[in-house]
Amino acid sequence: VTKTEIQRLLKEFKKGKVSEEKVVQTIAALRFESLGFATVDHHRHLRHGFPEVIFCGGKTPAQAAAIAVSVSRGGRPLLATRAGEEHYRAIRRKIPKAAYNESARTVTANGPKQAQNPSRRILVVSAGTSDMPVAEEAAVTARMCGNAVDTLYDVGVAGLHRLLARSDLLLTANVIVVVAGMEGALPSVVGGLVDVPVIAVPTSIGYGASFGGVTALLAMLNSCASGITVVNIDNGFGAGYAASLINKRTSQC
Amino acid sequence: VTKTEIQRLLKEFKKGKVSEEKVVQTIAALRFESLGFATVDHHRHLRHGFPEVIFCGGKTPAQAAAIAVSVSRGGRPLLATRAGEEHYRAIRRKIPKAAYNESARTVTANGPKQAQNPSRRILVVSAGTSDMPVAEEAAVTARMCGNAVDTLYDVGVAGLHRLLARSDLLLTANVIVVVAGMEGALPSVVGGLVDVPVIAVPTSIGYGASFGGVTALLAMLNSCASGITVVNIDNGFGAGYAASLINKRTSQC
Amino acid sequence: VTKTEIQRLLKEFKKGKVSEEKVVQTIAALRFESLGFATVDHHRHLRHGFPEVIFCGGKTPAQAAAIAVSVSRGGRPLLATRAGEEHYRAIRRKIPKAAYNESARTVTANGPKQAQNPSRRILVVSAGTSDMPVAEEAAVTARMCGNAVDTLYDVGVAGLHRLLARSDLLLTANVIVVVAGMEGALPSVVGGLVDVPVIAVPTSIGYGASFGGVTALLAMLNSCASGITVVNIDNGFGAGYAASLINKRTSQC
Amino acid sequence: VTKTEIQRLLKEFKKGKVSEEKVVQTIAALRFESLGFATVDHHRHLRHGFPEVIFCGGKTPAQAAAIAVSVSRGGRPLLATRAGEEHYRAIRRKIPKAAYNESARTVTANGPKQAQNPSRRILVVSAGTSDMPVAEEAAVTARMCGNAVDTLYDVGVAGLHRLLARSDLLLTANVIVVVAGMEGALPSVVGGLVDVPVIAVPTSIGYGASFGGVTALLAMLNSCASGITVVNIDNGFGAGYAASLINKRTSQC
Amino acid sequence: VTKTEIQRLLKEFKKGKVSEEKVVQTIAALRFESLGFATVDHHRHLRHGFPEVIFCGGKTPAQAAAIAVSVSRGGRPLLATRAGEEHYRAIRRKIPKAAYNESARTVTANGPKQAQNPSRRILVVSAGTSDMPVAEEAAVTARMCGNAVDTLYDVGVAGLHRLLARSDLLLTANVIVVVAGMEGALPSVVGGLVDVPVIAVPTSIGYGASFGGVTALLAMLNSCASGITVVNIDNGFGAGYAASLINKRTSQC
Amino acid sequence: VTKTEIQRLLKEFKKGKVSEEKVVQTIAALRFESLGFATVDHHRHLRHGFPEVIFCGGKTPAQAAAIAVSVSRGGRPLLATRAGEEHYRAIRRKIPKAAYNESARTVTANGPKQAQNPSRRILVVSAGTSDMPVAEEAAVTARMCGNAVDTLYDVGVAGLHRLLARSDLLLTANVIVVVAGMEGALPSVVGGLVDVPVIAVPTSIGYGASFGGVTALLAMLNSCASGITVVNIDNGFGAGYAASLINKRTSQC
Amino acid sequence: VTKTEIQRLLKEFKKGKVSEEKVVQTIAALRFESLGFATVDHHRHLRHGFPEVIFCGGKTPAQAAAIAVSVSRGGRPLLATRAGEEHYRAIRRKIPKAAYNESARTVTANGPKQAQNPSRRILVVSAGTSDMPVAEEAAVTARMCGNAVDTLYDVGVAGLHRLLARSDLLLTANVIVVVAGMEGALPSVVGGLVDVPVIAVPTSIGYGASFGGVTALLAMLNSCASGITVVNIDNGFGAGYAASLINKRTSQC
Amino acid sequence: VTKTEIQRLLKEFKKGKVSEEKVVQTIAALRFESLGFATVDHHRHLRHGFPEVIFCGGKTPAQAAAIAVSVSRGGRPLLATRAGEEHYRAIRRKIPKAAYNESARTVTANGPKQAQNPSRRILVVSAGTSDMPVAEEAAVTARMCGNAVDTLYDVGVAGLHRLLARSDLLLTANVIVVVAGMEGALPSVVGGLVDVPVIAVPTSIGYGASFGGVTALLAMLNSCASGITVVNIDNGFGAGYAASLINKRTSQC
Repeated sequence: VTKTEIQRLLKEFKKGKVSEEKVVQTIAALRFESLGFATVDHHRHLRHGFPEVIFCGGKTPAQAAAIAVSVSRGGRPLLATRAGEEHYRAIRRKIPKAAYNESARTVTANGPKQAQNPSRRILVVSAGTSDMPVAEEAAVTARMCGNAVDTLYDVGVAGLHRLLARSDLLLTANVIVVVAGMEGALPSVVGGLVDVPVIAVPTSIGYGASFGGVTALLAMLNSCASGITVVNIDNGFGAGYAASLINKRTSQC
Repeated sequence: VTKTEIQRLLKEFKKGKVSEEKVVQTIAALRFESLGFATVDHHRHLRHGFPEVIFCGGKTPAQAAAIAVSVSRGGRPLLATRAGEEHYRAIRRKIPKAAYNESARTVTANGPKQAQNPSRRILVVSAGTSDMPVAEEAAVTARMCGNAVDTLYDVGVAGLHRLLARSDLLLTANVIVVVAGMEGALPSVVGGLVDVPVIAVPTSIGYGASFGGVTALLAMLNSCASGITVVNIDNGFGAGYAASLINKRTSQC
Repeated sequence: VTKTEIQRLLKEFKKGKVSEEKVVQTIAALRFESLGFATVDHHRHLRHGFPEVIFCGGKTPAQAAAIAVSVSRGGRPLLATRAGEEHYRAIRRKIPKAAYNESARTVTANGPKQAQNPSRRILVVSAGTSDMPVAEEAAVTARMCGNAVDTLYDVGVAGLHRLLARSDLLLTANVIVVVAGMEGALPSVVGGLVDVPVIAVPTSIGYGASFGGVTALLAMLNSCASGITVVNIDNGFGAGYAASLINKRTSQC
Repeated sequence: VTKTEIQRLLKEFKKGKVSEEKVVQTIAALRFESLGFATVDHHRHLRHGFPEVIFCGGKTPAQAAAIAVSVSRGGRPLLATRAGEEHYRAIRRKIPKAAYNESARTVTANGPKQAQNPSRRILVVSAGTSDMPVAEEAAVTARMCGNAVDTLYDVGVAGLHRLLARSDLLLTANVIVVVAGMEGALPSVVGGLVDVPVIAVPTSIGYGASFGGVTALLAMLNSCASGITVVNIDNGFGAGYAASLINKRTSQC
Repeated sequence: VTKTEIQRLLKEFKKGKVSEEKVVQTIAALRFESLGFATVDHHRHLRHGFPEVIFCGGKTPAQAAAIAVSVSRGGRPLLATRAGEEHYRAIRRKIPKAAYNESARTVTANGPKQAQNPSRRILVVSAGTSDMPVAEEAAVTARMCGNAVDTLYDVGVAGLHRLLARSDLLLTANVIVVVAGMEGALPSVVGGLVDVPVIAVPTSIGYGASFGGVTALLAMLNSCASGITVVNIDNGFGAGYAASLINKRTSQC
Repeated sequence: VTKTEIQRLLKEFKKGKVSEEKVVQTIAALRFESLGFATVDHHRHLRHGFPEVIFCGGKTPAQAAAIAVSVSRGGRPLLATRAGEEHYRAIRRKIPKAAYNESARTVTANGPKQAQNPSRRILVVSAGTSDMPVAEEAAVTARMCGNAVDTLYDVGVAGLHRLLARSDLLLTANVIVVVAGMEGALPSVVGGLVDVPVIAVPTSIGYGASFGGVTALLAMLNSCASGITVVNIDNGFGAGYAASLINKRTSQC
Repeated sequence: VTKTEIQRLLKEFKKGKVSEEKVVQTIAALRFESLGFATVDHHRHLRHGFPEVIFCGGKTPAQAAAIAVSVSRGGRPLLATRAGEEHYRAIRRKIPKAAYNESARTVTANGPKQAQNPSRRILVVSAGTSDMPVAEEAAVTARMCGNAVDTLYDVGVAGLHRLLARSDLLLTANVIVVVAGMEGALPSVVGGLVDVPVIAVPTSIGYGASFGGVTALLAMLNSCASGITVVNIDNGFGAGYAASLINKRTSQC
Repeated sequence: VTKTEIQRLLKEFKKGKVSEEKVVQTIAALRFESLGFATVDHHRHLRHGFPEVIFCGGKTPAQAAAIAVSVSRGGRPLLATRAGEEHYRAIRRKIPKAAYNESARTVTANGPKQAQNPSRRILVVSAGTSDMPVAEEAAVTARMCGNAVDTLYDVGVAGLHRLLARSDLLLTANVIVVVAGMEGALPSVVGGLVDVPVIAVPTSIGYGASFGGVTALLAMLNSCASGITVVNIDNGFGAGYAASLINKRTSQC
């Protein structure tokens, strides 16, 4: 409901075309609908090409499939995370073109044909091969949001030369997502090498005093490299989404 | 040392203008100096207008002042954080134009005359008045990095209307830093209202089961609003710096 | 045993109608039975229409069924919580009219026909759909205690308009139970909008640094909204029971 | 802005007495001011006799005094918590009638002359003498809110007879606040004896494995007595306020 | 090896009945065997009637049975704790008279025919029915050590009258073991009523913020009743054993 | 009030010597006073020679002195723990014969002239010299309770020979209190050498990951030696009191 | 690439034998390959006889087998840790000579025929039989690295004589690995008896307040014996590897 | 007491030169003195040139000085750690040649004139300047033990080139101590570059979620680089001592 619409309504009211009751009702309805920027919520995904996201954790395959159908109606993009094989099979039965990324545990459909701005790249880096599922979740999320995404896996700090050997990727990225478990040191090293936003994702990889990712989380929060921000343990989706928000800001210019 | 320079050196070597010893020395020096993007470290602050930062915590006033002199040489920007009155007095004796922000506990000098891109604004929001020192540290940091910064303080979730009343600021910001202690709920609410990157900063404000900011930190890491990233407790500087990195990304377009 | 009864006993003793031994026995028995208000324990449920409650966690279906038969004897109300399908089947074999609420995981029978005071309503609010089992446990408990209960689900803080759109329910409630996992921010927002008692229930919904509900619990204990009290993680029953105690106080007037 | 006011405005607009611009402005202003129940925030304290509260922790005496003057303007009630001697002296200089409760560490003025409903009593119980400051904060808060308040101190579970000897107070209370440190067992015992709402307040009293009140907090959250709700460690104010909200509910009948 | 034995050996050596080599060997062997009080280890169980104990947790049924055979050789008492049905079946195949206590999860054989001193009784008290396995483990252990043991179960603090009604048991016990989960308050109440040693056993019964028994453990360590000592979570065996050591001390008089 | 007294009262009532009102009053008074064993609380200390104990932590010198006067009236024993020099001076002004143990931080007076049963000894063992204050608090407490007490300090596990060299003390003790900070290993070693009750006291001695005694506490709770029980961190008094309860049991035979 | 090689290259360039492009390429390649000591990474295992290690945790049998084939190519040593039966079977199908250590859960092949320096021995000590898997993992690792390894199991501190009886092993070891769960006291005792490096390995053996090995870990970090260092919970491999690094230093002399 | 001595004693006993009583006494004395390797404790420091160490934390200057005099008698080496200025002044009054290292907070005297084996070097590396006190404590300890020690400070992972630039020091070290606070990532990076034993020392440097060094400690325990062992937070002494034990092992060849 825009200012113009209200002005029009008032004019018609003055002319007697609409009743006082109707005007009062409209104004009452404004109480929350007029929040404007709040209702943006419903539309921003489409506007920015961000898909509705289904978190399959704790959902039955049937529930996930039902939501997937609703979400992807009209060719809108679909992204389901933490999806097991069984979720995928249930969704595919309804949406045959849905694709499954076994490593990332994502189901996707109606994704963007190509990145909106191929020169503005998001780089996803991971420390070990075991961190790959989380890293892939971040990469899939960012790609579904229309970004150009590169990946650089298994370059943990105990073998620095592996990371340094790919300085080209580090230096051309616009935003970097760094995924690591165990001691979570990789974001500090990457953050010291580049001057773009770095989003650190702790993973639950490790044992004993890794406490399911808490050690990596704490290490990342205490990074001595400036400008690093952190998301929850194993939250690849959140990191990919935040990276996309940052990258989009840029690409709208 | 660029490729061109090396080519030039080799040409001169072939011509006999430089000795073999000189060439070998230069190549040996490359071992680490040639890391290129690593040594960017020394220069990126200047390039982007980011000042060298002095963390005064645990430093004597004399130490802080000595570093401040070195850092600000040649009119380069100076930012000292966690500075007490005593640090300020010691610095001012050496750098008379240094200014003290009592709330933010920062000492600054040689800051940018004006924001590089006034239309791209960083908004710093805080939940309570007690969170202001951390919020101000973020704001001062972002301003020293050349950003246009707005602030919106004391708009905690227990009185939503205070936040909603300033939707204009929320809707025009390019990046938002949200600072909160206690239950740390404000970033979730802000994150649900906007579609720009939100950086959450937990503060140590609270008592009892707030555990010096741990509760706020955990709440922010578990935010149900997508795209929120988090920094360490009371790390206003880190948030301001990360916000600046994101905002700069944008302004390069 | 009331003062009057003792006076009567003494009179009969004086008259020789009861032996000294009988009087001494009675007095001895008073030692604990005379605690009076302590033994209220056995009767208060019936007086207030509060059912005996069976916590099925860690009980076999057979055990649960046996207790259920004992508890519901004479048409007294039955409420079994944390009941699996198998508990329900065992109970139904003995008490055919027992009903199962799959979401709340409760088995009930002999509940009140209608709320004692429909104008004094308890509202149960939840942040996400995953919090529903706990919210339903609270709602079922409160209804079994004879309260009029409304529910408002999936109105988490990341989409404020959903909550604000139902201000009618918030404003007409006499007591509000707010159920949330993850960052546990909803009670603070609700507490800031109303001036009735708010009982916050953290849930174990979340992953990583949600630590099985600890984050939500801590956030609720640190709420910046005054007057919020908290129960244990996933304790929907406790919240429904406390809400009922509060609501009953009122309705006895 | 009520419905009636809007109807009146529209009528005057139709008559031409107010301009269209004025009506549009008014409607625009409604966007947040019309939240109605949210703005109740400003008025509910007065309506219910609840004073504005100043948390002196982290505030200078001068700041506390300035806020106190503003809050108590026009004879409105004043309650300042966590106030040291120095805060009191600063406030008294501006508000001579202000009174200091050294144990509760509260400064009060313009309190209610008497309880609104003396037959509906709040009882504040504490386990040890060291818990008294928190208990007193709860009692003062509840009295400032217009409640009749009784206190029963130093009746910890290691000497049950002390508690049982005052069953009269337990049985006549409408709401009970139970304050305890160390093992925090008292609320469970009290909760088992009564059938009114019990609010448990853990205190930081103890040493070693009491962890500044965490042990008492956890014990209270795990109480085996139904219907107990809990507030933050040392949060006497919160408990007194919640107790008052509950008691008021009742007294409206 | 006693002093007398050594004297005898030396005499025989002097007489030439034993070689020097033999004497040196014996002395060398003394290096550790002569620790005397250390080797008591092997014999004290028999002397005091304490059985060797087998902790079945993490052992296969076959392993448990093999150890059981070795331990019970010659009619020595056998106590196996944390034994599942499968451990019992494996042991019974080798030791037909072995008995299984399903609740305590113990397998026993060759226990004492009767208590050594029936007038010195150990009382095992538990808060809830769910705590019974741990309480039974303590009772079985104490009985196997030759003590007279009474039990008093399901007398948690939320219904004090149940405990107070059995003051006779409390007053005649020589040592009391108190078992409780959840808020762990029962030891404090019992400790305040008696003047004998009280051993508190926290159990892992509870959910949410009971943290697998940590809350009960902390509460017991912070008990305001003097003279209470605590063992590890669910350590019924340890409590029964310690109670027996204390009770034996007494009975030696 | 004994059974005989009640029988006498009833007889006099029947004879008309006492009024019905008087009998009813007496019975009413029984409600809690008749708890008998509960009121033992007031007398058991004297009966067993246990002094009333004053915990000076958080008390002003004046408060401590006032309580001390009351407690020691009539020559009853006085024990004040956690007493600073200033507490001692205040007490001595009122009770000139009061003595201060600077290491144990205790003030005592009217202690027993000699141990009740010198052949039944309590041994207090400590790991390091820094643990001595806690060990001394235990020793002073046990002596004030009339026990014969030996001490063996600075015999930590990193130099086993120091402990083994005093096997005589270990072997003659009836109860052993073992005090240790840091890794808290000493109770396990002592517990493996003896077959008497061992009470372990963790101390807050250590730094870094000793977490103020938590590490020692946890280690003691997990001791692989059977029969060890544990008290709160730094709770020398509790250990001394429990040891005395155990030792008394014995010496009453 | 050595200095000599570069000098040769430059000479050939000057002579025109190699192109400028070739020289520039070589120098560019130096950027990371010239790190020299970093690339040592690839070769040090072979040089020192250290095998490549496969952590089977979280890997499928097929994955583990594929890596095993690659690692053991050319007769290089193979060590796979945390290997289940299924991993072993998969590996054996490809590498028939692979051997499985069921206790250590390791698969090995191509190990050293004999220890490089039999007089320099590593001793692996464990507290309980349940700690054996971790101890064996350490022993197997050290043996695969070419060390002479002795083991001494089930010598926990609750029965000191078992440890002291094998002083010969303790005194002849060059490095000692001490493995313990529960209270983790053994490393302190061992560390006090010897003057060689001691590596402590906490295990997850225990229950209740052992917190999956955290108690043992903390105890070891706080050891009062000097010179003890610690690895992660259950990290037998890490301890064996570190012990080998230390022992190798020696044996290279 | 050696085997030979016992054989001699027995021979003399047979000859009647010593009495039976004397032989029995000698054997009895063996009980603990014969532990042999345990008493090595007293001598090993001297043998290896390791000084007795005084931990000044919690000791008065007078106490520290008294111990220092005793320890350094006869020119034996003296090392006092955690010494404040006041400790130093007290010691110097007694031992004029004592030297104070203000950064390391150590007092030393009678140290070794020079390293025993200059070619076997210990390298101490630290991440930040604030970690220097702990690093210096390690360096001073190692030097006092007769080692050649190098230091490399302020080479944290956020500026890798600083570390890589000193590869010479890394490659020539025999043992490396790595000191770091905050995220504690440096040991992983160093451990990946070298193949010598690395001892990691977490420091309490940091704020917020660094939890006084716990984050760094956990990160180091979870290092992905093999062969790293860890000591307690801020335990520079322990690391220096362990490094020396390792280095000495080597130098004995």
